[in-house]
Parts: sequence; structure tokens; C-alpha cells
Amino acid sequence: MLAEIKGINEECGVFGIWGHEKAAELTYYGLHSMQHRGQEGAGIVSSDGVELKPYKGMGLVNDVFKHADFDELSGKVAVGHVRYSTQGGKVIENVQPLLFRAQAGSMALAHNGNIMNAHKLRGELEEEGSIFQTSSDTEVLAHLIKRSGNEISEKTIANALNKVVGAYAYIILKEDKMFVALDPSGIRPLSIGKLGEAYVVASETCAFDQIGATFEREVLPGELITISDEGLSSTRFAMREQRKMCAMEYVYLSRPDSDVNLVNIHASRKRMGIELAKEAPSDADMVIGVPDSSISAAIGYAEQSGLPYEMGIIKNRYVGRTFIQPSQELRELGVKMKLSPVRGIVEGKRIVMIDDSIVRGTTSRRIVQMLKKAGAKEVHVRIASPSIQHPCYYGIDMSTRKELIAANYTLEGICEQIGADSIAYLSEAGLEKAIVKDKTLNQGICTACMTGKYPVKEDGQKEIVFTSC
Amino acid sequence: MLAEIKGINEECGVFGIWGHEKAAELTYYGLHSMQHRGQEGAGIVSSDGVELKPYKGMGLVNDVFKHADFDELSGKVAVGHVRYSTQGGKVIENVQPLLFRAQAGSMALAHNGNIMNAHKLRGELEEEGSIFQTSSDTEVLAHLIKRSGNEISEKTIANALNKVVGAYAYIILKEDKMFVALDPSGIRPLSIGKLGEAYVVASETCAFDQIGATFEREVLPGELITISDEGLSSTRFAMREQRKMCAMEYVYLSRPDSDVNLVNIHASRKRMGIELAKEAPSDADMVIGVPDSSISAAIGYAEQSGLPYEMGIIKNRYVGRTFIQPSQELRELGVKMKLSPVRGIVEGKRIVMIDDSIVRGTTSRRIVQMLKKAGAKEVHVRIASPSIQHPCYYGIDMSTRKELIAANYTLEGICEQIGADSIAYLSEAGLEKAIVKDKTLNQGICTACMTGKYPVKEDGQKEIVFTSC
Amino acid sequence: MLAEIKGINEECGVFGIWGHEKAAELTYYGLHSMQHRGQEGAGIVSSDGVELKPYKGMGLVNDVFKHADFDELSGKVAVGHVRYSTQGGKVIENVQPLLFRAQAGSMALAHNGNIMNAHKLRGELEEEGSIFQTSSDTEVLAHLIKRSGNEISEKTIANALNKVVGAYAYIILKEDKMFVALDPSGIRPLSIGKLGEAYVVASETCAFDQIGATFEREVLPGELITISDEGLSSTRFAMREQRKMCAMEYVYLSRPDSDVNLVNIHASRKRMGIELAKEAPSDADMVIGVPDSSISAAIGYAEQSGLPYEMGIIKNRYVGRTFIQPSQELRELGVKMKLSPVRGIVEGKRIVMIDDSIVRGTTSRRIVQMLKKAGAKEVHVRIASPSIQHPCYYGIDMSTRKELIAANYTLEGICEQIGADSIAYLSEAGLEKAIVKDKTLNQGICTACMTGKYPVKEDGQKEIVFTSC
Amino acid sequence: MLAEIKGINEECGVFGIWGHEKAAELTYYGLHSMQHRGQEGAGIVSSDGVELKPYKGMGLVNDVFKHADFDELSGKVAVGHVRYSTQGGKVIENVQPLLFRAQAGSMALAHNGNIMNAHKLRGELEEEGSIFQTSSDTEVLAHLIKRSGNEISEKTIANALNKVVGAYAYIILKEDKMFVALDPSGIRPLSIGKLGEAYVVASETCAFDQIGATFEREVLPGELITISDEGLSSTRFAMREQRKMCAMEYVYLSRPDSDVNLVNIHASRKRMGIELAKEAPSDADMVIGVPDSSISAAIGYAEQSGLPYEMGIIKNRYVGRTFIQPSQELRELGVKMKLSPVRGIVEGKRIVMIDDSIVRGTTSRRIVQMLKKAGAKEVHVRIASPSIQHPCYYGIDMSTRKELIAANYTLEGICEQIGADSIAYLSEAGLEKAIVKDKTLNQGICTACMTGKYPVKEDGQKEIVFTSC
Repeated sequence: MLAEIKGINEECGVFGIWGHEKAAELTYYGLHSMQHRGQEGAGIVSSDGVELKPYKGMGLVNDVFKHADFDELSGKVAVGHVRYSTQGGKVIENVQPLLFRAQAGSMALAHNGNIMNAHKLRGELEEEGSIFQTSSDTEVLAHLIKRSGNEISEKTIANALNKVVGAYAYIILKEDKMFVALDPSGIRPLSIGKLGEAYVVASETCAFDQIGATFEREVLPGELITISDEGLSSTRFAMREQRKMCAMEYVYLSRPDSDVNLVNIHASRKRMGIELAKEAPSDADMVIGVPDSSISAAIGYAEQSGLPYEMGIIKNRYVGRTFIQPSQELRELGVKMKLSPVRGIVEGKRIVMIDDSIVRGTTSRRIVQMLKKAGAKEVHVRIASPSIQHPCYYGIDMSTRKELIAANYTLEGICEQIGADSIAYLSEAGLEKAIVKDKTLNQGICTACMTGKYPVKEDGQKEIVFTSC
Repeated sequence: MLAEIKGINEECGVFGIWGHEKAAELTYYGLHSMQHRGQEGAGIVSSDGVELKPYKGMGLVNDVFKHADFDELSGKVAVGHVRYSTQGGKVIENVQPLLFRAQAGSMALAHNGNIMNAHKLRGELEEEGSIFQTSSDTEVLAHLIKRSGNEISEKTIANALNKVVGAYAYIILKEDKMFVALDPSGIRPLSIGKLGEAYVVASETCAFDQIGATFEREVLPGELITISDEGLSSTRFAMREQRKMCAMEYVYLSRPDSDVNLVNIHASRKRMGIELAKEAPSDADMVIGVPDSSISAAIGYAEQSGLPYEMGIIKNRYVGRTFIQPSQELRELGVKMKLSPVRGIVEGKRIVMIDDSIVRGTTSRRIVQMLKKAGAKEVHVRIASPSIQHPCYYGIDMSTRKELIAANYTLEGICEQIGADSIAYLSEAGLEKAIVKDKTLNQGICTACMTGKYPVKEDGQKEIVFTSC
Repeated sequence: MLAEIKGINEECGVFGIWGHEKAAELTYYGLHSMQHRGQEGAGIVSSDGVELKPYKGMGLVNDVFKHADFDELSGKVAVGHVRYSTQGGKVIENVQPLLFRAQAGSMALAHNGNIMNAHKLRGELEEEGSIFQTSSDTEVLAHLIKRSGNEISEKTIANALNKVVGAYAYIILKEDKMFVALDPSGIRPLSIGKLGEAYVVASETCAFDQIGATFEREVLPGELITISDEGLSSTRFAMREQRKMCAMEYVYLSRPDSDVNLVNIHASRKRMGIELAKEAPSDADMVIGVPDSSISAAIGYAEQSGLPYEMGIIKNRYVGRTFIQPSQELRELGVKMKLSPVRGIVEGKRIVMIDDSIVRGTTSRRIVQMLKKAGAKEVHVRIASPSIQHPCYYGIDMSTRKELIAANYTLEGICEQIGADSIAYLSEAGLEKAIVKDKTLNQGICTACMTGKYPVKEDGQKEIVFTSC
Repeated sequence: MLAEIKGINEECGVFGIWGHEKAAELTYYGLHSMQHRGQEGAGIVSSDGVELKPYKGMGLVNDVFKHADFDELSGKVAVGHVRYSTQGGKVIENVQPLLFRAQAGSMALAHNGNIMNAHKLRGELEEEGSIFQTSSDTEVLAHLIKRSGNEISEKTIANALNKVVGAYAYIILKEDKMFVALDPSGIRPLSIGKLGEAYVVASETCAFDQIGATFEREVLPGELITISDEGLSSTRFAMREQRKMCAMEYVYLSRPDSDVNLVNIHASRKRMGIELAKEAPSDADMVIGVPDSSISAAIGYAEQSGLPYEMGIIKNRYVGRTFIQPSQELRELGVKMKLSPVRGIVEGKRIVMIDDSIVRGTTSRRIVQMLKKAGAKEVHVRIASPSIQHPCYYGIDMSTRKELIAANYTLEGICEQIGADSIAYLSEAGLEKAIVKDKTLNQGICTACMTGKYPVKEDGQKEIVFTSC
């Protein structure tokens, strides 16, 4: 929901489980815990060793599966996916896992990330006679695997992955094997857990906690893991590189209770608030955070600054998709549904308002206005991450450069645009300090959208052409 | 609904329109009039000359489109499809029109019929690196077209059709052209109509009446028609053969108000009843028909025999999909939902019961029992078509040979099985006399399921492997 | 559905069962078979001897009960109701059975008919301090019973019924007794059946056939029946009068398989057609009937006249409530959903078109036009009942006098209005001959809407003020 | 949602607006902001000065109104209600506003609270001939008003209110007047606001903020307000008493952004946390709160104690009603949907866990276990209100005395039951200090459920017999 306000959208979460009687049902719970990573559609493909069985639909995980018969998703193996789709791609065909059937055996794919050379690869494949039913870049990988040999194996998958440039976390299922792969820079998160004897794979560790599984280890950059009844084996399809985990996972995207690349999200956000308070203190009466993602940073800022932390903005828990939108006339009266200021708290006060990031600035302006209208004397905006000035090619759907406020205005300009009394961003060094706990742990981050330092490049890459995930 | 009782299931209806502002909406009404040809799913793909836009879903036409926004199906061209799917294929992926996207241009396919060599062709295509997302034989044709050249044209389509063996009526849409094709024996129905300047194509002419269009002509066996803004042009991809229109279209499948290959369905059914009365008269008090498909034949039988026609069985108009099925206990009490005997009519009477056909015989037995329980003194069953003893390979989903009562019992055996006092079938000659009005009109029929005379053969064809349509 | 076309609307059907383990479920099936008597809402109240448990909702029986948990409607006793509501009263509150709770015991009421003095009675009750939650005249009876003494008994019910003037069939349920009452003229139908040891009560006998029950007898005019675990006992709250069963039940309202007051509906309709052929023959090529209610009369007319009966109009079986209505533009193109002419049958032919009745004449005009547009040379309209010229005060929702075509035009005028080549109605004597089989059976009919002879009168009665049922 | 976990359920919220073009729509938004006060059903009755128009349904406000046509709720006046219903009363009849129709004029009632002598009053009314259609105590008041004179006026309402004993906030609507009444002790909250010239009434002030209205004043204990086109006038139906606002509104029920009796909820909760830290400090590493209602108190405790406030428990934002519940087997695996511990935060730490209250103790035990399983070294439970030991007769649905853990165990016993390392409650004095800001403002509170000091008594009152609101 807030995702829509902000203009940053995570693209997808993947989940897989091997070796549990309740595989499909546990996948459902795992997907549910990663609902924040994609709200447009969800799907599960299970395997009983003989056949792959799909179930998918548009909407939230609950809506998709409320009429599902899990008996029809039998088997001890399952793969699931939640999807956020960019505009224009909101069709059921694109909902994953994609399922490809062949007389030699079927294959299901679940993907989080973006293939940067998908357009070029697809053109080549079409030249060779391939036809496509989705606008998803994930379908390209399926064709590449198929063209690498009639069998779906470690070898054909590695071949296909080596043709692909981008950021990706894949789970590939055939009747009797599951393959797990992460891009050579490890830009997208992907972890391995165990639930008894069963193996579990998920984009976020909150899915492990959800089902009672325990975290085992990270999937490594460039690693290709094979899981079967013989157990788990690992190989590399690419040279090991310095990991470049997406910084936005820490700043905004992941759930506070997840550990991303061994770092707890809430804790890292709180440290961002602490660093921000050190770098950009403020003479004010209280600290408030924009719910939900900025609460942790606001608590950190309050703790470091010694200012009281207050609940100055409320998020309505009952706002959903079916909500009847107020007419223009009523909006002007002040009818607002998602966020409300707490007049009794902010009236007459000087406020430090912590937000995790600013994309277009429209939401920030609205919140500052809302606070002032509720009586706030001053509003000092503090952003718990560096300013976003560059597009992401690695699977996050952000606004185009033209829309990014920080790409078009100076700090003073931004402050004026959003109507704040002052504004400051966390520095890149501050961000890194907040995230990286242990240099020996390969905890490097990708800050391309803030710094323009792109770890992976593709010649001529201009924009996301395909629906990525 | 009754379709389920009987065990004969039409597989699909197709509809296309070129050159009307309300193309998608008219397609909706056309599909609605052909709802009896397929109840599992429905879809429309429209074109505005630049882009193909799909909308499809599971269920009845009304259910699928009740939330559709026809503004999103803009354009003056549209293709639609209603689908009956055989067991195991009830997934949204198989709902047509199938849509294939390519950088060179997209293609939508709507199909009624069955490709007999689909399994073999698919195996070959997979060997060459093709991947499949549906279990529909229609996807095979798309690959064949694509493999015949990167362009979708008369030439590549004709090439592809020449590799295919079976019974089929196709509508193929690209952004700026519509192609219409019928198999060389013309086994499946397909007609051309006009609505003002717009061209209309449909499996049944009732779709023309529905939208106020007028019938122009039949699509000819082996004909490939191209419709574009330049008008309609025709070519042949196969030699002209004697037409072999599916006899079951007349006996059971089509709507009474349709003209199939220039013959009105109600009139032909009434003539079947007349012929049947001549061939197999009966000493009885009244004639009744099994609703809805046998009413016409019953009226003909009554007229010829001089016996009164009575409404001895009522069909409940409110039985739908959401109906709560009675428990076993209640079924034993006689709770029945679809058909009810009219006790006040049948009590103490000798009845001629007309049915259009018998497949497994279970429904006939149930109806005979029902009539006797309501007091009928005698029930003489008269079937207005020859007995069904052979499987259909041309797109009709009938029971397997093992289940066909006429393939396993003598006439006396059948009579005993269903508990009738006497039984008789219409002869093949009688059927032909009832259907073919004018020998010069190429009105030949396929009676393979009754006579075993298959007009089209494929070596080693044993059963329907793919989901046909 | 057709009900809406015609402008005659049955108001409600009632069902009750005493002494069966599956009482509520059987009530569901009984209501389903009487769906044609009311489509706006449905409800069931069951009793386990201790407590009355209600379930009701707006819409068709299937829609209302598809999510019902019949375990929550436990008990061996149940009462049910289907309702048609007049404009303005489409609210859930009015859906019956109405349930009134009191510390001394609860009471449920199901009603078919109309209380003519409801407005006056309600005014008096309000003066005395009663408050009302529905706009249903049924609530008035509940208050009258309550005011007749704190107990719900034969005596208080008889007292209340004696204050009420109108046409009514009531089922009243308390925890341990069921009461059944019919108005002194027996204008509305109500029958008693048995299912094993259980007693069944229903507006139409088709409900008995539906659940496997057998017909026992009619409820008599002015009879009050009490059913309990001690069995069935009967008393009279009013003097026995000549029965005046609503003639429209035979002409249009009841199901063809029901016996109303011992007369089968289909058979009586066929006799209406026979009498009509005798009274008003026609020089034509064929006879057709307007589906569904006029088919029986058309068959009778054909049989008597010797003309062939043909299926010249088809009714679409898939038209439902969710249907997307064609835009004005499309309607002008001829898009029509419910009835279609069969061009192949009617083209170039002189047609006798049988209809059961004409109310406003708009539907008749549309059908005649439709037939002529499909090529009919002549259309001779024959109506299988006398013309409707007077309002009904006994529970049938017909158009007002101003709208009744026969109240405003001569026969010639009507013929011209509807565009027919000739028109004739059945005579009152012909109707009576068709319905009354046996004068000794008290089979008198109410023809007030045709003849203005009202069997029950209330001073100053002008129009239906309350929502009747 | 959490309401169900806790076992305390607010019973209803009321909203009214007089004099705005968009009355019904604004009522919808107002009800939406008070969704937390009742999730079982919602309704609106509007008036256009001539007629009262109702719309209501079961479920959340969004679900009830998503298909509503607000044009049918026309008029410048509206009353709305959200309802929580106690077990057994989950029927649409009980959803408010209740609407009573009479020839002299209609009346709608919306009620929050509980009538303690409803059972007795209803018995008396039934003796006098009244009949009831709901099990709601609100219907009793309607009868009392009606019995006080045929007119709905200040006088008849005051008469009726004087017969009633309990806690209540009423809005009563007739075609041309709105009446607002609060019980003599002012136990339930009710405020007056203005939106331009329009008057607004609501249970919580968050509804004013929602629609852009401004707070005017509290409705006073024993006050009866009349609003009409002539404006607002006030009278008293009872002597002014010391106000006894329900303390649980502050502790748990109201939204943090509401001001209840001039006191902001978040601020009062934070002060409860501060007082609790003073009264019951704890040697620990961090403070965490149980979301959502205990967050404010946790922040206060942290601020006062100097311990860091951490997000140790996450509440899943996507848990809704349609959620598929995990099977027993999966629950044992640890599949939990609503609350999740943040392992990365709590592992190895000594935790102060703040909760607002304990009812049965089962939830507290589960949360303590969850934290320990996630690695917490110690869990010190601190409750930000005095222990609940007595039932509420004023409209809050709490567990019975038998189930209240504090009524059955000593402090040590409770600590052991929930598995905490220590436990402490806020004192009554601490609670009062946190809530009452200004003694001159009549800010007295009802602490009956904690102290047994009942401000309003009814002889023989034992339990809630009727469905209260």
C-alpha cells in the first residue's frame, strides 16, 4: 500500500521447499510472510516427483489461495512466488512460477531480479523460431535453458545463466530436482534454511521464522545449488565476486524482522537513525517516523539525540484494496485514508520527521503539509539514506530519473518543494556504517541508485523494457 | 449442463469480427449465443491495429466478462472463443484465444476442432528447442507458423496447416490482419456474415442473429480467408474435398436456431423425428421428448405418428453451477434437480420417449425409471439418430469405446439395460435424409462415431492425447 | 426472468416440513423448485424444538444458500419462503420468514398473498404503541397474534386471522408447533404432502415431487391446521366458502408439473390451447408458442387445429442476472438476449403465435416485430386466456390499470398496437372449461383481473400500499 | 484482529452528521476511521427530510459498502454504526442503525453501550403486546420511546431514557431531527464537531480528523441534544453527575490519535508507560511493546527508564479475515500469522515487554514463549494498567470472571502462568495520574473492571443477557 505512495516497488519474492509432506501449504505461509515484496499476483507449483502442479492468480496471497485446494498441490516439493508487476504487465500470464511443459519433462521458474539483456536475447530467440506467451524476462531464461540441450540440468542451466546479464535470484523446479541460483554480484537476497530434514529457500529470512525453519546460510554470488532426494550439492557458474547486496533492501524493502546477508533489518535501520542523528542533529521537541518503514530509524534518531520519540502519524490498519476512494470534493475537505496526523501530539511542537527515503517528493510534501495543518510549528525532515538520483536496473521499480526529486533539485530546492523547515540526508559513509557489521563477511552493498556506481553493466542499457521481477 | 449428463461435449466455438467500432462488445454477445459450445472458459483478444489486447477467464461468458472493462479491449477488430476442456486441462493457460507476443508482432489463435498428429508434431518441435506453456494442441500450430518464417502471413499459415492432420476451424489474428481457415473435409462448422461493412466469422449462425448480422456464406473446406482493411480475399491451402460436416452438430450440439452448412437445426431434427416415426412406429398414448435437445424430434415424431405431443418431463430453469448437490440420503429420497417427470401427464400412460442419442445409457436409464416411478405404464424409447459405437477424433469429447453402451450391447441388451419396453434407433439413411436437403450443395456429413467411416485418418491415432478444442 | 418481460409477478412461495432429520435441507430443495414464484430473496427458519434458527438473504435460492451451513439450521422442523418484492421494498428486512423473538417464545411467519386492510390495521396498531421494522404486511399479522394474547396458539392465530381481509396462505412456526392457514376463499394455492412420517406443506405440488414426497390433500378455504409431534389436527377459523383459486396460477404462474387444486397445470394449459383453437381458428402454416409458459397451450392449439407445431422462437438458457446489457447502439443493431426467432423456420410463413396472456402489450409487440423481421409473412396472435383489464388485490403484482393494454384499447386497437395480422382471446367460459375438470371438487376460480368479479372486498381498497407477498 | 487475541472487545461506534450534501459518504469515512470499534457489521441510515433510507451489512465497513450506491443514500443527514457482536448474535438483524417504520414517521437508532435492565424492560413490553425482531437491547429503547407517546420527540425520548439503566451513547434519527444522548455518568465517549455549517457527532474524535471536521465539545453526562435545520439545542434528561469515562478507552480501545474526554490517547498511554517505569523498573537490555496498542506505553517506559526501545515483535500487516488457518501440525512447527518475534533483536537479551492489559493470559503466555524461543534471555512483563478482575456491565465484551487470570491467581501465580521472569501492573493511582490532566475538567474515570467500583448499579445484574452495543 505504502509502496504505491512512495514510488519504490520491490519486484518479487521467491520461496522453495524440498522434502516436506506439507510443501505447498508451507510455501503459502512463506509467501504470505513476503507479501510486502509483491502484491499483484502469487503462485505455487508443487511436485510429487512425477508431475508439476500449478496454482496461481492475481491479487494478494490470501485472495489467490483462499479457494485453493491444497490436496491438488500434493507432493513434498514446492516453489512459490509473489509478484509486483510494472504498469502494463498486469496479466495473469506473467504471474510466476512460469510453467513450461515438454514431453521430456516440465520446468517451473520463479525469479526475483531483472535481466538487463532480455530484449536482445529475446530478439535472437525469436529469430530462431521461439514464440513467447508472456512479457516477462523470466521466459527468456526458460528458452535459453531449452536451447542449451533438451535436458534441464546443472549444465544447461549454467550455460543459460552465463548468457544472462543482470541481478537475479532464481528457483527452478523440475519433477525430481530443484535448482537455486544467484547472480555473480549477489545483488538480490536469497537464503537457505532447514525445517527438520527439509531444505527451504527464500528471498527473506522472515519466511523461515514464519514456518519455524532455521537459517542455514546465504546463497553465494554466482552459486548454483542443486537439491534432490540425494541432498544439496553446490557448484559455481561464475567467478566469485565481491557481493553487492541492494542497499534499498535495508533502507526500505525488507521486513524489519528479516536478516539480509546476515544483518538484521530493524537493527540496521535503527543504526541509520543513530548515524543520521550524529550527522544531522536538529533543535526540536520530538522525533516522529513515517509509518511503517521509518519507525526503526526514528527510534534510533530519538535515542541518539535524546529527544522523545512520539507517535505523531497514525497508519490506518484497515485500509485495503477495496477501499472506496473519496471524491475530489471530499479530498479537499481533508478526507485521507492511509496516514493521519495526531493533532494532540504535534500541535504547537517542533518536529523532526524521519523518513527512510524520498523518491518523487510528493508524499513527503503531503505529510509535511498534514503535520503543519495539524498544528506543528516546525517540521525538520531527516532522511535515513542518501538521496536517490539514479535509476535501478536490478529489479526495483523506481520512478524515472525525470521524476526523482533529488536528480532535479538542490538540497535547498527539495526543502522548499516539500515545505519543510530544514532537510538532511544520511551520507553514503553513514549508510555503509549502519549496514556493514563485519568486513570479513562480504557484506558489500549496491548503492547505484544513490551514487550511480553500477556494479553490473550492459552496453546500451537504457531502461527496463521487459516486465522484470 | 445437460451436456454433463449426456457425456457428449462440444469442444469450443470461435467468433471474429473485423471493422466495427464495438468489436469486442459484439464478440461478447456472439460468444454468449454460443455458450452451449463451451462452458469452461472464454476469452477475447481485440486489436486496434497496433496492439493485441487479451481478456480471458474461467467459467461462463457472463462470469468471465461481468467485470471486464471493454474500453481496454478497444479497436475495430476482435476474436473470441468459448471453450470446453476435457478432464485435466481445466487451467486458465488453456483458455483461448492463445496470445503469442514477439518483437516482430503478436498473434492470437482461436480454434475449434482437434489436431490428430499434435503429439508427434510437438515432440519434433521440442526436439528443435521449442517450449510449451499450455497442454493445448492449438499451441502446436503457433509454433509451426513461427517456424515457417518469422512473418505471420497467408504463406506461413498455409505451410503450417499443411503439416497438420485433423478437423479444425481457425481464426488467427495479428495486429492488422485476420486469417480464417477450415480443414479440407470441412468437419467443423464455420460461417461468414456481414454487419454493415464489418465482416463476421462464427462457428454457428445463431451468433449472427444475436448481433443483427446477416449470413453471407460458408467457409469452404480447405479455404484460407484473409480479412484486412482492404477487404476479404480467399485462397486454398488444400484441394477441395467432399464436405463431411459432423452429424452430431445436427443431432445434438448446435442450437435449434442455427443453420449449419445451410440446413436449419430445428427443422433437421424435426425431420429426424418424422423419419424415426416412419421407421419405428409405436403403439402408445403420447410422445414426449427429453429437454431440451430432443424436443424438435419429438414434435416431428408426434406429427408423423398422429400421437399427441405432451410435456412429460420438465427441465428446471434455475439449475446452475452453484447448486448445492443433494446428499446421497436425499438423492435416494428422489431429490433431483435438472429433470422432473410430470406425474399428472404420464400417470397410467403408454409413452414414446424421444431422445436424440444415447452415449453411456446411464441418463436414459434414469429417465425411464423416473417416468415409471411417476406412473408411466409403458416407456418406448426412440432415438433420433443411429447408435454411437465409435470414438470421435475430430474434437467432440465423447466417452471412450468401453463406455459406449451401443458398442457393448445388442439392441435387446440396451433395451434391458435402460429398462425400456422397446427401443429403436434412426437408420443412417434416415439421418442423411433428414439432414441433406440438396445434394448439389456439398452437404455431406461425417457419421464416423456411428458408422466407423472416418473421413480423415492419421496413422497410429489411438486417442486424444492433447487438450483439443 | 420472463416475469420481468411480462409484467406479472407471482408474489412468493411457502414451504414447511415437520418431522424429518434433514428438514432445512429439504426446505432448500423445495424452495428451489418454487424459484419461479419469487427471485428477490429467500429464507429458512428451522426449529430443534427449543430454538428457532434463521438464515436468509437477497437473490436466488442458490445464491442465498450457497454459503449456508445447514448444520446451523438443525432440527426436524423448518419453514421456508421465496419472495418477489414490489418496487421499493427490496430490502433484506422484508425477506421472509419473518422472525419475532419473545421471552415467552419465538414465532416465524411465511406468507403468500396480500392483506387488503393492512394499512388500516397497522395504523391502529401503531396508535396502540406497536413499532414496525419492515414494510411487509406480514408483520401486521404477527402483531395481531401477539395482541390476541401472550401465547401463540390456535386461538390467538384464529383471532388474528379474523381481523384480516385478503388472500393468504400462511405457515407460522413456533418452537414446538407449526400452524398452516388458508384464506376463506382459498385464493392462493396450498397443499399438504407426506414424506415418510413427515408432514410437508407447499404452495405448489412440484415441491413434493422435488423431494420425493407424495401429495395428500389441499388445505381447505378457511382451514387452520396445527402440526406437532402429536400429529396433524384441523379446525376452521372461517365458514367454508366456495373456493376461488386464482386463475392466473393456471394461465401463467405455476410450474407445468404442479397440480393446483387437483388440476395439472400443463394439461389445463393444453386444454386452453384446444379451446382457443375451437373458438378462434386461424388460416396459417404453423403454430408457435412464446417460451416457456405458452408452449403447452401452443401444443394444444396445434393438436386441435391440425397445424404443425414448430419451434419458431428460442429462449436463451444462459441469460442470467449478471448479464451485461447491450448499449442502445447495440440494441438497435438487433442484439437481443432472451428470445430469438428461428429464421430458418419462420421465414416466408404464416404463423399462429400463442401467448398465455398480454399485460402491457410491449413484449407482444416486440415478439411480433422480431418474427416479421425474421421473415414471417403473417403473425396471428392467439391469447390462451381472457384479456386482463382489472388490478389484482390478492397478491399478484400486475401493472396498474393505466398500463393494461386491454383496459385501454379495443380488440382492433390491441391488434394494431402490437402489429399483428389478427388477434383473439380465449373466452371466460373457455378458460373455465379448460381448468375445471370436476364440479364436485370445489374447483372454482377467481377471474377478477379478467372479469372484475372480486370474490373478496375491502371498503375503500384502492391499491396495494404495503409490500404484499 | 488483535481484539480476538486479547478477549476485550469494544462494542460499537456511532457517527452522525447533519447538514452536508455528502452526508452518507462522510459517514462512511467516519465509520471507517472507527473500524477498530466493531468489525462484525456496519450500517448507515440517511434522511432527505422526507424519508429514512437504510443500507447495512455484515463485515468490515469496506466490505459492506463496496457495492453501495451512495445516490440511494441521498439527503443531507445521516447516522452510521459499526458493530461488534457477542457470540450468538451474529445476524444481520442486529446490525445498526435499527430502523423502525410507522405511518406517523420513521426512526433510526444507533447505540454504543449496554442497557443493564434490558431483560426486565423487554419482559414488561412483551407482556403489553410488543414484539421484537432483534436480540439487541437497542430495540428496547425504540419500544419505550413509542410507548411514551406516538411522537418521537425530546419529551418521549427523555421519558424512555429515564427508564433505562446502563452506559450508553445514542444517536436517534427521524426524518427532520437528530437526537444525541449520553448516559448520566458519561461512561461511553461521544463528541460534537463541526464541518463548515454541518454538525458532526462521533464516538471518537479520530472520525472528525478523518473528514476534516473540527472538535467542538464533549456531549455531557445526562445531556440530550436536538439537531435540526434550526440548529443545535440542548437539554438534560438526568441530573449532572461526576463523569466516569471508561478507563479501558484509554488503556486499549480508542485509537491513539483520538482525544477522549479532552485527553489524547497516545499521550495518556505514554504517561502510563512513564508511571509504570517509575513504579516498576526493571534491570534489562531493552524495552519492547506488543503491537499495536502497547507501543505508546512501551515508548514511555523506555524514555523514563533510559533503556533503548526496540522493535522486538512484528505484526503482520497483511493478516485478514480470509486467512487460511494453519493446521494443528503446522501450528506446532511454529507457523504463526499475526505476531512474529525479531530474532536478530531479542536473541540473548534481557527484555522488558510492555503490554496494555492482560485478560485471560493466554496471549501473554504465547508471546513470552515466542520471545524465549527466539532467544530472549529474560522477559520481564510490565502491564500499563491495573489488573482486570471484574466483569464489565457497560458495553465491553470481556471474558467472564472465571476466565480472568487476575481474578484467579496471585501476582506470582500469573507470572508463573505466563512464564515471565517478573511481572508488575500499573497502580490505580498511576493510571489516574496518566489519564486525568485537569481535575476541573470532569475527567473522572470508570475503573470498575479493575477495582470493582461500579458507578452504575442495577439490582440483580449478573451478566449481559442481551446483545449490547
